[in-house]
Amino acid sequence: MITHISPLGSMDLLSQLEVDMLKRTASSDLYQLFRNCSLAVLNSGSQTDSSHELLSRFENFDINVLRRERGVKLELINPPEEAFVDGRIIRSLQANLFAVLRDILFVNGQFDSGFQQQDVDDSVRITNLVFSLLRNARALHVGELPNTVVCWGGHSINAVEYQYCRNVGSQLGLRELNICTGCGPGVMEAPMKGAAVGHAQQRYKESRFIGLTEPSIIAAEPPNPLVNELIIMPDIEKRLEAFVRIAHGIIIFPGGVGTAEELLYLLGILMNPQNRDQVLPLILTGPKESADYFRVLDEFIVSTLGEAARQHYTIIIDDAAEVARLMKNAMPKVKEHRRETGDAYSFNWSIRIAPNLQVPFMPTHENMANLNLYPNQPAEQLAASLRRAFSGIVAGNVKEPGIKAIKEQGPYKIHGDAEIMRRMDDLLQGFVAQHRMKLPGTAYIPCYEIIK
Amino acid sequence: MITHISPLGSMDLLSQLEVDMLKRTASSDLYQLFRNCSLAVLNSGSQTDSSHELLSRFENFDINVLRRERGVKLELINPPEEAFVDGRIIRSLQANLFAVLRDILFVNGQFDSGFQQQDVDDSVRITNLVFSLLRNARALHVGELPNTVVCWGGHSINAVEYQYCRNVGSQLGLRELNICTGCGPGVMEAPMKGAAVGHAQQRYKESRFIGLTEPSIIAAEPPNPLVNELIIMPDIEKRLEAFVRIAHGIIIFPGGVGTAEELLYLLGILMNPQNRDQVLPLILTGPKESADYFRVLDEFIVSTLGEAARQHYTIIIDDAAEVARLMKNAMPKVKEHRRETGDAYSFNWSIRIAPNLQVPFMPTHENMANLNLYPNQPAEQLAASLRRAFSGIVAGNVKEPGIKAIKEQGPYKIHGDAEIMRRMDDLLQGFVAQHRMKLPGTAYIPCYEIIK
Amino acid sequence: MITHISPLGSMDLLSQLEVDMLKRTASSDLYQLFRNCSLAVLNSGSQTDSSHELLSRFENFDINVLRRERGVKLELINPPEEAFVDGRIIRSLQANLFAVLRDILFVNGQFDSGFQQQDVDDSVRITNLVFSLLRNARALHVGELPNTVVCWGGHSINAVEYQYCRNVGSQLGLRELNICTGCGPGVMEAPMKGAAVGHAQQRYKESRFIGLTEPSIIAAEPPNPLVNELIIMPDIEKRLEAFVRIAHGIIIFPGGVGTAEELLYLLGILMNPQNRDQVLPLILTGPKESADYFRVLDEFIVSTLGEAARQHYTIIIDDAAEVARLMKNAMPKVKEHRRETGDAYSFNWSIRIAPNLQVPFMPTHENMANLNLYPNQPAEQLAASLRRAFSGIVAGNVKEPGIKAIKEQGPYKIHGDAEIMRRMDDLLQGFVAQHRMKLPGTAYIPCYEIIK
Amino acid sequence: MITHISPLGSMDLLSQLEVDMLKRTASSDLYQLFRNCSLAVLNSGSQTDSSHELLSRFENFDINVLRRERGVKLELINPPEEAFVDGRIIRSLQANLFAVLRDILFVNGQFDSGFQQQDVDDSVRITNLVFSLLRNARALHVGELPNTVVCWGGHSINAVEYQYCRNVGSQLGLRELNICTGCGPGVMEAPMKGAAVGHAQQRYKESRFIGLTEPSIIAAEPPNPLVNELIIMPDIEKRLEAFVRIAHGIIIFPGGVGTAEELLYLLGILMNPQNRDQVLPLILTGPKESADYFRVLDEFIVSTLGEAARQHYTIIIDDAAEVARLMKNAMPKVKEHRRETGDAYSFNWSIRIAPNLQVPFMPTHENMANLNLYPNQPAEQLAASLRRAFSGIVAGNVKEPGIKAIKEQGPYKIHGDAEIMRRMDDLLQGFVAQHRMKLPGTAYIPCYEIIK
Repeated sequence: MITHISPLGSMDLLSQLEVDMLKRTASSDLYQLFRNCSLAVLNSGSQTDSSHELLSRFENFDINVLRRERGVKLELINPPEEAFVDGRIIRSLQANLFAVLRDILFVNGQFDSGFQQQDVDDSVRITNLVFSLLRNARALHVGELPNTVVCWGGHSINAVEYQYCRNVGSQLGLRELNICTGCGPGVMEAPMKGAAVGHAQQRYKESRFIGLTEPSIIAAEPPNPLVNELIIMPDIEKRLEAFVRIAHGIIIFPGGVGTAEELLYLLGILMNPQNRDQVLPLILTGPKESADYFRVLDEFIVSTLGEAARQHYTIIIDDAAEVARLMKNAMPKVKEHRRETGDAYSFNWSIRIAPNLQVPFMPTHENMANLNLYPNQPAEQLAASLRRAFSGIVAGNVKEPGIKAIKEQGPYKIHGDAEIMRRMDDLLQGFVAQHRMKLPGTAYIPCYEIIK
Repeated sequence: MITHISPLGSMDLLSQLEVDMLKRTASSDLYQLFRNCSLAVLNSGSQTDSSHELLSRFENFDINVLRRERGVKLELINPPEEAFVDGRIIRSLQANLFAVLRDILFVNGQFDSGFQQQDVDDSVRITNLVFSLLRNARALHVGELPNTVVCWGGHSINAVEYQYCRNVGSQLGLRELNICTGCGPGVMEAPMKGAAVGHAQQRYKESRFIGLTEPSIIAAEPPNPLVNELIIMPDIEKRLEAFVRIAHGIIIFPGGVGTAEELLYLLGILMNPQNRDQVLPLILTGPKESADYFRVLDEFIVSTLGEAARQHYTIIIDDAAEVARLMKNAMPKVKEHRRETGDAYSFNWSIRIAPNLQVPFMPTHENMANLNLYPNQPAEQLAASLRRAFSGIVAGNVKEPGIKAIKEQGPYKIHGDAEIMRRMDDLLQGFVAQHRMKLPGTAYIPCYEIIK
Repeated sequence: MITHISPLGSMDLLSQLEVDMLKRTASSDLYQLFRNCSLAVLNSGSQTDSSHELLSRFENFDINVLRRERGVKLELINPPEEAFVDGRIIRSLQANLFAVLRDILFVNGQFDSGFQQQDVDDSVRITNLVFSLLRNARALHVGELPNTVVCWGGHSINAVEYQYCRNVGSQLGLRELNICTGCGPGVMEAPMKGAAVGHAQQRYKESRFIGLTEPSIIAAEPPNPLVNELIIMPDIEKRLEAFVRIAHGIIIFPGGVGTAEELLYLLGILMNPQNRDQVLPLILTGPKESADYFRVLDEFIVSTLGEAARQHYTIIIDDAAEVARLMKNAMPKVKEHRRETGDAYSFNWSIRIAPNLQVPFMPTHENMANLNLYPNQPAEQLAASLRRAFSGIVAGNVKEPGIKAIKEQGPYKIHGDAEIMRRMDDLLQGFVAQHRMKLPGTAYIPCYEIIK
Repeated sequence: MITHISPLGSMDLLSQLEVDMLKRTASSDLYQLFRNCSLAVLNSGSQTDSSHELLSRFENFDINVLRRERGVKLELINPPEEAFVDGRIIRSLQANLFAVLRDILFVNGQFDSGFQQQDVDDSVRITNLVFSLLRNARALHVGELPNTVVCWGGHSINAVEYQYCRNVGSQLGLRELNICTGCGPGVMEAPMKGAAVGHAQQRYKESRFIGLTEPSIIAAEPPNPLVNELIIMPDIEKRLEAFVRIAHGIIIFPGGVGTAEELLYLLGILMNPQNRDQVLPLILTGPKESADYFRVLDEFIVSTLGEAARQHYTIIIDDAAEVARLMKNAMPKVKEHRRETGDAYSFNWSIRIAPNLQVPFMPTHENMANLNLYPNQPAEQLAASLRRAFSGIVAGNVKEPGIKAIKEQGPYKIHGDAEIMRRMDDLLQGFVAQHRMKLPGTAYIPCYEIIK
């Protein structure tokens, strides 16, 4: 089956050079990247968390970029049937396909010598790249007052948690707040679903359901069908930076290692003395059934990073309206702070993100083994190191290169302070027990080993 | 608590005369009508089917029309709290409040001497009134191709049926069809909810969720929060006529007496030889659990109106996508027929509705007793009489004057052909047994007695 | 030549009753009215001031209303060629044709027994009719802050005056003010042309060029092609009332008798003690070549109505930017006054227009002879009587019934106070000498005789 | 006087790097370029053709880029008063200021090492740069069918010619065609003025008045106030290429050397055998008073390039409607050709522009002396050489470096075939006599010498 798709939303016109760049060639990494991300988009809404499964199910899928009189067209060969209704592609997928094209070309144009380049380590240039990519995706709306709530949490949550996330979304939507998530299923979908109904009740037409993803995760967590702004950041560090710089508030729902990584990343930023004056409301919330989850996480944070960490977040259990009300009430304060510092409403230039949070962390066995997980350092630096440890575990769980490395070399060995290691082990065991490492129905085999 | 509400969507400016007309006066029926419909709107989404309960819960609610520099404002005194989020009215309710104002003023302006007037019996003028009211509500969109699916069925359905209706709505939404219902809960809500998500996936911006209601029912079935075009027709006959003339296709989901009334009304029209060439797809559908319901209804129809009735409808069990596909495929045929006959896409002028279906039926005990429920008449006339019988039962169940009449004079006595009476009794007993007469949790006391 | 025209801007759908109403029948006054106004619109921009000439040039023109699947269509038979470009009607004319249809149907629906009815004399009902007609034409925009400048003056002005009016328009346009005029050529066109360029420079997208006309004048002064909101008021009194109630400021450019009529009408209102607190800036302006015109007019006013009249207007000679600046600066004051009094920004309900200015004045010879033009009355009443005298002269000059009456019975005889009569005669002789009574190239034969 | 200007239309957000790039520094060429182009925009509509005069009049003008919470702002220090109305900047100038910023940053980002870089000579990359710059300026509208008419001709034309150009513009506007010019006064303004009124009559909302300019000419020919899409190409060759690739038809009005240059450039393209199948209507037109001008130009073309040249253009004298009708009728053919070849409607990729027309020609005395102006070459190559000769003369007349070179080294010496030189001299003498070299009122001193 072959079908031709017209642009929607972005990337109407390509130059000859750009089209040539995406041509399928035996050796073209860029083409493979483009093809795989496109395939993930076409599987929007499918319940899987295995890139490998997805990619192997559609081995004969192919995609070509064509130039036509009304602009570029995409030729899809053997695309997944679910992407179509009565033979016509679903328009949100159509739009997201072109978002993939847009971001891949942009990043490639910036790096020039290819998407895999890792040597960009200048902090200012990294931030500028994040900014430029978001601007090119037209994700930075100048006219908008602060209203973007980033929701983090697991892709694998239970039905009670899902419904709670949806309720929070609904309450956020009734208050005309927009949602930004990692764009997959679970917590990345539920708040958008709720907000969609809340927005409809408010006749709110500017609904933004921003999905920030990255090539290495998109196939494992395909964008959910409500995402109406899909943006593909080149790697997890730039993705996390994008989240933080466009957020006007952040909610963390229950999740697994990835969620812990995100919280540690945030604390690595918020505990940085240079960010003392930042206004960035951070709420941890879940249904009453998940109260324990947050209690354990809170204890882990306090025991490793100290009591001071607590001032940066609020835990609210089982009160969706209160979560939304707190967020809504914080927006004027965010606005005021940006106005006072002359910072953009749509992009938080002034928040300081240290290089150890920006520079891509390669979760090789060696790097994992060398992490400094000892208390002899400022809290924000320990937070950054812990975040790298969890990041590596996420990679070992769901990212292709990580899975491959584990297969070949066995689990990562993680060293550190005995007490910290014990706390960490407890936390991770808890995640396993609560099925937060994988979608239900699949047994979890740890990709790490804690050396106490 | 007093709050002032600005217009949204319609009725920005009122003349001095119009404002005076709606002033609260001891004797003003128009004010009472306006107040009660407004109160119903403010209870949008509440789970009740008793006007009385609703109205008695908010006895100290009051509403005033004020003229201000930017146009009219509504002053609400002691409105239901649920209509507000953090002290601000939900915008869909705000819009619907002004839709009430618009339609009441319009109908009153047409009738001049008041809303209760029943002496308009000229068929042409009735149809023109229906048209004018819809046009005034800006519900007739000239630019739109046929795409409006009317969904009928009960306000009291079970969870399985609700989910099925939602699935059908989702499939209709994915095909960019709009929904028109009676605007209350249950079947009047579920397809809209589904379609909202379908439309979002298709980035379809013209979502129309039309709710057609009437003053005597609105408080018992308050508009659900997804209705974005609320229209208040003066009585059930004009409401039914409005449904038929704006429909490009009709789906009947499981319901109770009201649903049977609607089907009989339709057959009274479609079996009329003058409508031989009309194109109006009619599908009866439900989940597999409801297959019996349609089997019984189908048998009742065939046994009373004859095998010929069947050619006017299709029964589809448990296949939401197929229902939507059939509807979508019928749209070009509807369009073609309108084009050939020069009839408007947005309003079916050419379908013939006989006066016995148009003239308001007063369900007095006398009128109910005098219905001709014998086989010695053309099928479409028997259908019309049966529809009046069921209409009376709906009134006895949920409409204020009906309930009052039953209270005072006991159940209606219905006479007719023994076989027809038996079939009818079976059908109604079945509805009672399936809890289709009232919302679950309330016992049903029949408002009629079949005299065999 | 026959051509079919689709709706643009208004009146998409008509009911069967409405279409029947406009059918051509031997005796139908309504059809004639509709046909003649439509013909005038199709002659938009033509340089004539004779209804008779226009109507006799297109005797075989005919128009029919058709109902079609996408709504109403107009069938034009033998329309003027100038209304088309390469066989396609110019869209502003297309829109204005449907504005004619809209207003004629509306007024007819209001009067019910026909457009010619003159017995409506209740002040409140007249004002409500003016309001309803403007609202029905969607001319009352609730969201807009005060920004509408009414420009009055002659349809027959010289090139220097035309350019000056255009400059004033350009300066108004640069300040994002909208223009409302009588919609014909000359002063009714020039400020719109200027403002169009001013608006373009300001990227102002809400340009409103409102043309208020009436059936008896439209053929003599066909709407100029820039009018983008054409509204047809039933008679000159309602037209003048409409001007005053939608104006946020008024500019009077040089003109002839009609202009003097307008100024007197305004003074009849502004000098009314009940309007003491009204905020309605009024500027008389022209190029330096027209300084004399305003000097003479000013003297006439002062000598007849007294020095107090002067406080209601400002005369500015040859300073287009200053005129626009004064108007712009007055807008916040207009807004403030409306807000304080709770009056609508878009329609000045509170300004008092006395019945002697509202009730249609029939310029019969008898009525003209009976005017009270003596100083023994309040200034605003004398102003109203003088306005009627001038109104009669306009009718005798360019309106069909007036021209006919003069033809049959000779010139009007006007009586009054000797000094007032002398001043009036001087003023009128001046108009004749300055070619302000007719378009250049046609000799003017006075339609009145002043009996001193 | 200092004032801050917000973005309009483009460039809402700048990165830190971009802002730094435009900082004023002693040595910054980029800042000077940015400042001078901005100053030219602020002088929009001023009647001058001397960059030097303009720049020296506003020596204390300064501009700074500031980052603020709602995005970038421009700080203007001592800007020209005429750019403001009652202290507020005219919005078209505001938008054009940000267009300058956008294009300068874009070109700089592309060249990386600075705007003056001339070493890009690869034909494919030049075309891609032209495309990318237009795309970045959002000038390539995918949804639009062919409708862009490029108008070329002099900035210094007489009143009769101006009025004729305006009439042609009006006729183009009535046919809903858009206008693209070099964006200065004269022929670059008149068709836009006419089209604005034509568009208003057609209620055409998509008016595009594209002005393509270049840094070296913008101060001598400041954008006229109707330009609503200003684009600054880096040099004359890329500007000419942009004209040709976005044109769907080209009209040449009377002009001077620049106009002759443009015609020769076009013939250098259209006579290229590779462009045999191109569809690009080219009309030369003027009022009857300018008939001689075209006769002489036509003779010059035929005598130098041969009779075959004539098949590429049509000369129409004094018939504005016919010019517009021909253009309008050609649009479907343009569309058809693009569709058949799969080329974009909005950008003509397939037309071949030889490197000798693409590579910037530096009009040094040496290069001018070395031009091959002999008949021993294909016609399209001779056309290209002649175009360079005329291009040099334009530079010597109005561009800063050219004027400076002439001042220092005396007039250019141009060699060539005697007959061609005689024809060329005649043509140029004619331009001088007709005041087509400079604005009226300034004497013209030739910047060239023809060596026969």
